[in-house]
Amino acid sequence: MREPIDFYFDFSSPYAYLASHRIGELAERFGRAVTWRPMMLGVAFAATGGKPLVEIPLKGDYAKVDLVRTARLAGIPFRLPSRFPLATLAAARTYYWLEETSPAAAVPFAAAAFGAFFAEDRDISDREVIADLLAGAGVDAAVGLAAIATPGIKERLRAVNDEAVARGVFGSPFFFVDGEPFWGFDRLPQMELRLAEIAA
Amino acid sequence: MREPIDFYFDFSSPYAYLASHRIGELAERFGRAVTWRPMMLGVAFAATGGKPLVEIPLKGDYAKVDLVRTARLAGIPFRLPSRFPLATLAAARTYYWLEETSPAAAVPFAAAAFGAFFAEDRDISDREVIADLLAGAGVDAAVGLAAIATPGIKERLRAVNDEAVARGVFGSPFFFVDGEPFWGFDRLPQMELRLAEIAA
Repeated sequence: MREPIDFYFDFSSPYAYLASHRIGELAERFGRAVTWRPMMLGVAFAATGGKPLVEIPLKGDYAKVDLVRTARLAGIPFRLPSRFPLATLAAARTYYWLEETSPAAAVPFAAAAFGAFFAEDRDISDREVIADLLAGAGVDAAVGLAAIATPGIKERLRAVNDEAVARGVFGSPFFFVDGEPFWGFDRLPQMELRLAEIAA
Repeated sequence: MREPIDFYFDFSSPYAYLASHRIGELAERFGRAVTWRPMMLGVAFAATGGKPLVEIPLKGDYAKVDLVRTARLAGIPFRLPSRFPLATLAAARTYYWLEETSPAAAVPFAAAAFGAFFAEDRDISDREVIADLLAGAGVDAAVGLAAIATPGIKERLRAVNDEAVARGVFGSPFFFVDGEPFWGFDRLPQMELRLAEIAA
């Protein structure tokens, strides 16, 4: 089996949500696994002077048009969240807790968190919503909520943030295929061509 | 005939160069003309807090990888210019002078200026290069170089910049199809789908 595809993202990134609908199937077609790496994009922004799209004049308004159009053309359910952006620290920490303790539940939890935010307009910064998602993944929610407040899990997420910045991640979603970077949902077709070239 | 597609760009934008290779054929397929609108992207950046890609840490380095890859996959000749970015005021003013005085030469001049910069690594901020390109378009270069220093042509470009910002242009290339905005070479497939929907 070839190297996994690294998939860095922030749970508050709508383009990462769109990519989360496609990356599993795309990777599998080329015999690859996917390493999901939720992170705090704000840390990367601090390194690059980037800003959340919605805070940028003109570009933020355009992004809303582009997102709705892109989701429609891709056939992926999407609605603009009424609260945006949200704090995604709890969701990211929960992912790493699951990865350590119930690895089979980690990606389903992440996919459900994305769907809750971008298809169902739920507030994934809310502990109750995180608890619901954990219960949906068949995991003891109380144990999870307690675990994500521990220093070990906080440190795990910090280490991923640092690793992402060190690898040049500056936006979300951000992928690496055998070390080659691909940024954005709109680069999945290029990633597919590259995967095909490598497989040939 | 339907409304023309508006094509705003800065001559220093490599993604606009790539788009310049496709937009004519794409528009024609749907019975549309293209209104080429060279502008000073710096004016839009002043309004949005944007910056040239190459000046942004990490993102600038990634853009070089992405550009070469995107051009290769699209089959468009491209090399990273050795001098970048360049002042594109003279090229933009020359375009508007041609549009007024020799309209049939304006788009061929713009296409040649893009190719000089991004395929042949020539310095299009240089008056000699502009003179060459004018001569190549069958136009008296000395008359052109004199004309672009006149207040009328300067004012024409300023008016386009103002109009672009007023319409929400914040990047290059930037298109409008019946008022709907599309930003980026990578959005041409979406524009094509929209043109097809309108034509249906």
